[in-house]
Amino acid sequence: MLAGGVHALFLLGTTGEAPSLSYRLRQEIVQRACRQVQGRVPVLVGITDTAFVESVRMARYAAEAGAQGVVLAPPYYFPAGQEELLEYLQHLTPELPLPLYIYNMPSHTKLVFEPDTVRRALDIPGLAGLKDSSGNMVYFHRLQRLLAGRPEFTLLVGPEELLGEAVMLGGHGGVNGGANLFPRLYVTLYEAAVAGARDRVEELHAVVMAISDTIYSTGRHGSSFMKGLKCALALEGICEDFMAEPFHRFRDAERRRIGGYLEEIKQLLRRVGLPG
Amino acid sequence: MLAGGVHALFLLGTTGEAPSLSYRLRQEIVQRACRQVQGRVPVLVGITDTAFVESVRMARYAAEAGAQGVVLAPPYYFPAGQEELLEYLQHLTPELPLPLYIYNMPSHTKLVFEPDTVRRALDIPGLAGLKDSSGNMVYFHRLQRLLAGRPEFTLLVGPEELLGEAVMLGGHGGVNGGANLFPRLYVTLYEAAVAGARDRVEELHAVVMAISDTIYSTGRHGSSFMKGLKCALALEGICEDFMAEPFHRFRDAERRRIGGYLEEIKQLLRRVGLPG
Amino acid sequence: MLAGGVHALFLLGTTGEAPSLSYRLRQEIVQRACRQVQGRVPVLVGITDTAFVESVRMARYAAEAGAQGVVLAPPYYFPAGQEELLEYLQHLTPELPLPLYIYNMPSHTKLVFEPDTVRRALDIPGLAGLKDSSGNMVYFHRLQRLLAGRPEFTLLVGPEELLGEAVMLGGHGGVNGGANLFPRLYVTLYEAAVAGARDRVEELHAVVMAISDTIYSTGRHGSSFMKGLKCALALEGICEDFMAEPFHRFRDAERRRIGGYLEEIKQLLRRVGLPG
Amino acid sequence: MLAGGVHALFLLGTTGEAPSLSYRLRQEIVQRACRQVQGRVPVLVGITDTAFVESVRMARYAAEAGAQGVVLAPPYYFPAGQEELLEYLQHLTPELPLPLYIYNMPSHTKLVFEPDTVRRALDIPGLAGLKDSSGNMVYFHRLQRLLAGRPEFTLLVGPEELLGEAVMLGGHGGVNGGANLFPRLYVTLYEAAVAGARDRVEELHAVVMAISDTIYSTGRHGSSFMKGLKCALALEGICEDFMAEPFHRFRDAERRRIGGYLEEIKQLLRRVGLPG
Repeated sequence: MLAGGVHALFLLGTTGEAPSLSYRLRQEIVQRACRQVQGRVPVLVGITDTAFVESVRMARYAAEAGAQGVVLAPPYYFPAGQEELLEYLQHLTPELPLPLYIYNMPSHTKLVFEPDTVRRALDIPGLAGLKDSSGNMVYFHRLQRLLAGRPEFTLLVGPEELLGEAVMLGGHGGVNGGANLFPRLYVTLYEAAVAGARDRVEELHAVVMAISDTIYSTGRHGSSFMKGLKCALALEGICEDFMAEPFHRFRDAERRRIGGYLEEIKQLLRRVGLPG
Repeated sequence: MLAGGVHALFLLGTTGEAPSLSYRLRQEIVQRACRQVQGRVPVLVGITDTAFVESVRMARYAAEAGAQGVVLAPPYYFPAGQEELLEYLQHLTPELPLPLYIYNMPSHTKLVFEPDTVRRALDIPGLAGLKDSSGNMVYFHRLQRLLAGRPEFTLLVGPEELLGEAVMLGGHGGVNGGANLFPRLYVTLYEAAVAGARDRVEELHAVVMAISDTIYSTGRHGSSFMKGLKCALALEGICEDFMAEPFHRFRDAERRRIGGYLEEIKQLLRRVGLPG
Repeated sequence: MLAGGVHALFLLGTTGEAPSLSYRLRQEIVQRACRQVQGRVPVLVGITDTAFVESVRMARYAAEAGAQGVVLAPPYYFPAGQEELLEYLQHLTPELPLPLYIYNMPSHTKLVFEPDTVRRALDIPGLAGLKDSSGNMVYFHRLQRLLAGRPEFTLLVGPEELLGEAVMLGGHGGVNGGANLFPRLYVTLYEAAVAGARDRVEELHAVVMAISDTIYSTGRHGSSFMKGLKCALALEGICEDFMAEPFHRFRDAERRRIGGYLEEIKQLLRRVGLPG
Repeated sequence: MLAGGVHALFLLGTTGEAPSLSYRLRQEIVQRACRQVQGRVPVLVGITDTAFVESVRMARYAAEAGAQGVVLAPPYYFPAGQEELLEYLQHLTPELPLPLYIYNMPSHTKLVFEPDTVRRALDIPGLAGLKDSSGNMVYFHRLQRLLAGRPEFTLLVGPEELLGEAVMLGGHGGVNGGANLFPRLYVTLYEAAVAGARDRVEELHAVVMAISDTIYSTGRHGSSFMKGLKCALALEGICEDFMAEPFHRFRDAERRRIGGYLEEIKQLLRRVGLPG
């Protein structure tokens, strides 16, 4: 990913399967990644947890390991109200040794950081940004409007299918799982969008959609994105495709389909001038 | 709206409160609108109905009145499966005297036209396009990909907050309720997006978001969009703000707030070179 | 059904596929049923409609045809707030020539009549009862508590799987689709529950669950209840199993399965002393 | 609770706020409770966790501390499919040193153990029962039917508002949060339901509903049940009403309301012959 030009790393997020890993393993990932990166790019660490104390503990661990920020989705077992969500941020943020990025992920947490809650949270010292994985661009644009006077607050988009438009219309970047596989594609798309090069954005976005419609859409469940991505990473020799419970790697039939898709995608990448 | 440059009209949609109107009134609207327009732009007529027969009847009425197309969301009382939805389209479309546009509106119908259903529906003679009001741009981009070989099939976006990006990334246009109020704004935004003029899109989009965050966000309920829009139309002297049951026009307090917002929006419009 | 002892009829409800029928056909059903019943039991007529005027029209038609009451779910296209729902009842009920029964059916209307809304609606002259098809017995018991001082207000349960407990714990009865097929079963279960004969309730309830798990659970979609019931009715020679769009009758394979289930159920019925 | 006659204890469930507690505190609760109970009733321990390894670890801890069973809701961050849920049970159960009770809690986990999944899970050695907190009695009755041949498999209901009917119709008992406050009430209701004493069930159930409508319904959020219960426990001098993040105890105004409700409930309890 560093060779591919990504501007930062986010460890222990959703694609990283963080909630499914033991705490020991989560810590090991943070430590080994920070050691490897050696400060070349900022490292953000997910500290989402249903238990307040465990979030603080992980944030402290991340700071000691040399990370630059932490990322937090709300506690996701009990359904909280917006007022409670705000108080939670107000209570937690002062305990954190690193800048905090909010992670809006309603499909997994059952809870949206409503724009008005974000607006009220902007006063909290230490709050540095927000990653929106809702997939709802109306919501994203609402946040942009209320952040108009806060250019140092970083607004990032989660789904890579929305990276092009989010950045063309003023968003600051993306945290896109596909960059584990083809970092250069997403970095180039980001740069084209910053430059307002609409035609270039459109052709790169088409490749992103091709990946989304093939590699991420093999298999029946909500987990097909993660399974497809991991399978492709394994086929590329980047990492094992072992998955934490309750999920399992694709079997041979799906693996062969992913292999075929990978070849198609690489052709598309070459056609837009990127290393396949 | 014609003076504002809109390229077509969609009668009896959601903003038009069609399901809340008596059948007699629905017919009167079609007849009077077609007579007024006199073919200057295409007129599309909503024929969404829980009863198959009533949809067909309204489509015939629209054809006789001189409309150019009909628009159909799925029957919205019984939750149908995708297979049933496809069969429904296969059975209904041959009965229609006008080209059919699908209306994807899951928040109101509880049902998405899944991409694979759209793909299979493309064979049906008479199917001319789709309006997506899901607000889900990942879905919209999925549709674009499967429509790649069908340039004559029209893909339109519902929420005006998404018009800029939808058109910049290849969508064909929008069916935007706000064009009842400020048609010139949406037409200009559309044209800038077609031209790939990113900076112009961004500044016009900002005005669209300002309208969305003020006029459409006054009041607590899901109906605040319609109430705010109608109230603004009344304040501008364009039409009465009477609403069909179960809704009611805004009272004085909200009306005053909308009045203030209108002035702000007009200033923003003038700042981007549009008539306020 | 009259021979089976049912205490009233509800025409044009969900099982009756009312929203899928043309208005002409809905009227014909009301007229022919009232003529056939000749006052032997009360006839209630569904007047649910997205258009206020059409609900009133159908209620007037029902009164003229000789019905005793009307049943109303909220308008189901636009999502209304509770305040709007209450106002809707306040505006509509005075226009109705017959007593009104509220129909709580959130799976199809996206809207619950919240207990507090029901409490505030109790003042409306003409409101006679409520049929709860939510399947949520905590909600049902909440309504019972707030209706404690209103014994003349009729509280009925929709899902037949809940008839036994609803009536044993003080509910007034059920409006159960299965009574189209085996009216005697549901009437006997109701009577046992009124009498507090727990063991008898338990054995009859077990037959109801057997029907629910077999005849109603053949096929993949939400419509399997209606398809299975209609298919069984056709196999019994009671009526055709034609279904209105967007649904279709079961094909041969499912029909054979339903036939087998019917034999099993009849055995169960005979075992509990009922005509199979 | 033991003095009130409860037949077993469930530690670290939803009312116990388990997911919000640090792991150290969870262990302390298990150890201290087991030491206090000294085998007088079975102690079940919640081991729900998003990480497989942490569930196993907690189960081992519970066994060492002297508990009799463990209770497991599915991992609740990633949305799993039914097939994955079944495999998860198949992989996890053999690792557990104690019998496993499934915890069906879709409002918090986004996932239902569908009846067919439960049916297929019945083969897993070590599976001892299921607690259903869905509030859906049709689902509960479906489970009863498929468990007909498995009388040793324990089926319990979560919401106390449904205890009466669940047990009258053959369910084995309840795991009811209110038994922290008035254990005698729920034990007596259970016994009346087992005995089929319908009138007694009805009058005790009415008190349960009164508690539900008052103490549990103060405050606006989904957490009002837990806040009201804890507040009442504090007013009764049973425990502190401190709550783990993201929640907070009621303030004075709500506390006074709960105090008033408590007096009303105690009157109702005395009226049905129970210690107030």
